[in-house]
Amino acid sequence: MTPITGRTRLFGILADPIHHVRAPQAINALFAQRGFDGVLVPMHVTAAALPAMVDALRRIENFDGCVVTMPHKSAIVSLLDHVTDDARQVGAVNIVRRDAAGRLHGHILDGEGFVAGLRASGFDPAGRSVYLAGAGGAGNAIAFALARAGIARLAIANRSLARASGLAQRIAAAWPTVVTGTAGADASGFDLVVNSTSLGMRADDALPLDVATLAPSQTVAEIIMQPERTALLAAAAARGCRVQPGAPMLDAQVALMVAFMTGATGT
Amino acid sequence: MTPITGRTRLFGILADPIHHVRAPQAINALFAQRGFDGVLVPMHVTAAALPAMVDALRRIENFDGCVVTMPHKSAIVSLLDHVTDDARQVGAVNIVRRDAAGRLHGHILDGEGFVAGLRASGFDPAGRSVYLAGAGGAGNAIAFALARAGIARLAIANRSLARASGLAQRIAAAWPTVVTGTAGADASGFDLVVNSTSLGMRADDALPLDVATLAPSQTVAEIIMQPERTALLAAAAARGCRVQPGAPMLDAQVALMVAFMTGATGT
Repeated sequence: MTPITGRTRLFGILADPIHHVRAPQAINALFAQRGFDGVLVPMHVTAAALPAMVDALRRIENFDGCVVTMPHKSAIVSLLDHVTDDARQVGAVNIVRRDAAGRLHGHILDGEGFVAGLRASGFDPAGRSVYLAGAGGAGNAIAFALARAGIARLAIANRSLARASGLAQRIAAAWPTVVTGTAGADASGFDLVVNSTSLGMRADDALPLDVATLAPSQTVAEIIMQPERTALLAAAAARGCRVQPGAPMLDAQVALMVAFMTGATGT
Repeated sequence: MTPITGRTRLFGILADPIHHVRAPQAINALFAQRGFDGVLVPMHVTAAALPAMVDALRRIENFDGCVVTMPHKSAIVSLLDHVTDDARQVGAVNIVRRDAAGRLHGHILDGEGFVAGLRASGFDPAGRSVYLAGAGGAGNAIAFALARAGIARLAIANRSLARASGLAQRIAAAWPTVVTGTAGADASGFDLVVNSTSLGMRADDALPLDVATLAPSQTVAEIIMQPERTALLAAAAARGCRVQPGAPMLDAQVALMVAFMTGATGT
């Protein structure tokens, strides 16, 4: 990494908790590789502090953008000056660019990144059935990206059934060929099982679904980055499933994130 | 520098303009030397944006403190939760620590750093006469530190004569042995001539005093870091004066700044 000076462009990642994030390492490595004079730093901000933080980010003249992660992805949408159609449809933002006038533009890359990670490891979602745990920001992004990738069927499990049902209806409206519905803890029979909740970040978290319903024919994918091997992935591997950790989703997103924050994309 | 992660503590420097600041290089080098997992980044904030920025800094849980420089040193005093006696007396802050409860504590190190820099290069202020251009935040800090260091006489030049006169009166009240007064552009006869204004940062700035009044017996000191050789220093050197650039003042402050921001000092 080149030394930080008064001319270095500033980037951040907004999260709570913050210790587990991987974006600083991944994005600073890419900046260094490209000889770009920028630095991305962790900004640990609680949900209550988010509005004041977003207001301040508009006013930092050398601030160019930030990654947004849990628990801020949905809440930040209404705080920004503009969001892309993708982000509006999903109802979540995971990347923000600040333009020269101080306006903040939001976009979502979680879904694209998740599907790219699946494909890179040899799983093509086209025609498959999917069980999705979680209907929050990441769950929404993944559901829309999987629908765009041509899945046949999607069942959504969520603590709030209304939220699961609402997401299922929005997918059905946008992608009429996808059979959608809600689900409980039983993940049996689906080709792909995805955890998009935060359950698994802490050692004492409950499992996001009933792992006794998993079978060797299934692929189980996780969006949690740390721990790399969540309790869900460990249980799935023990039952003979193919497992996919959260890292590939971020790896596939890093270049897209940098392109969006530095204005290299037109979205 | 060690890679920035989600566990890295965040520090900043608030300035406008920002490109010339040296604190990121100096303080990050010291962090690296000590194996401290922290990073100091430039935060370019205008005077109008300062209140919102300070409000946000309180709410960044991994933010531990910042350096404050022009034009914010005086304005930030009333925005903080607590300032040291030194900072209150000077009416300016150049270093802030955030405690675990989110409270912001301000202190001023400019004066100590300036006097330490003078002494390190062999100039002892005790018993000397001083011409000081500028009665802003830095000028106040330097005036009080020079008075504490035992100068005999202090003349203050400032665009606003009332401000120069106000500082002269506060010095006289706190240090009755120092003969104080105001001055115009004529710096002749003083042992030490100090520029504490921002004149000299830009190539087309006016000179802060009448350089035709300078003579070889004088020492001319600058607080501007960049350019390293201001028009004042160039003119003073051409007239045979001993010159002191701004860098030593910061060099002497770096360790003190880190100690204050990381809570290693009791002040």
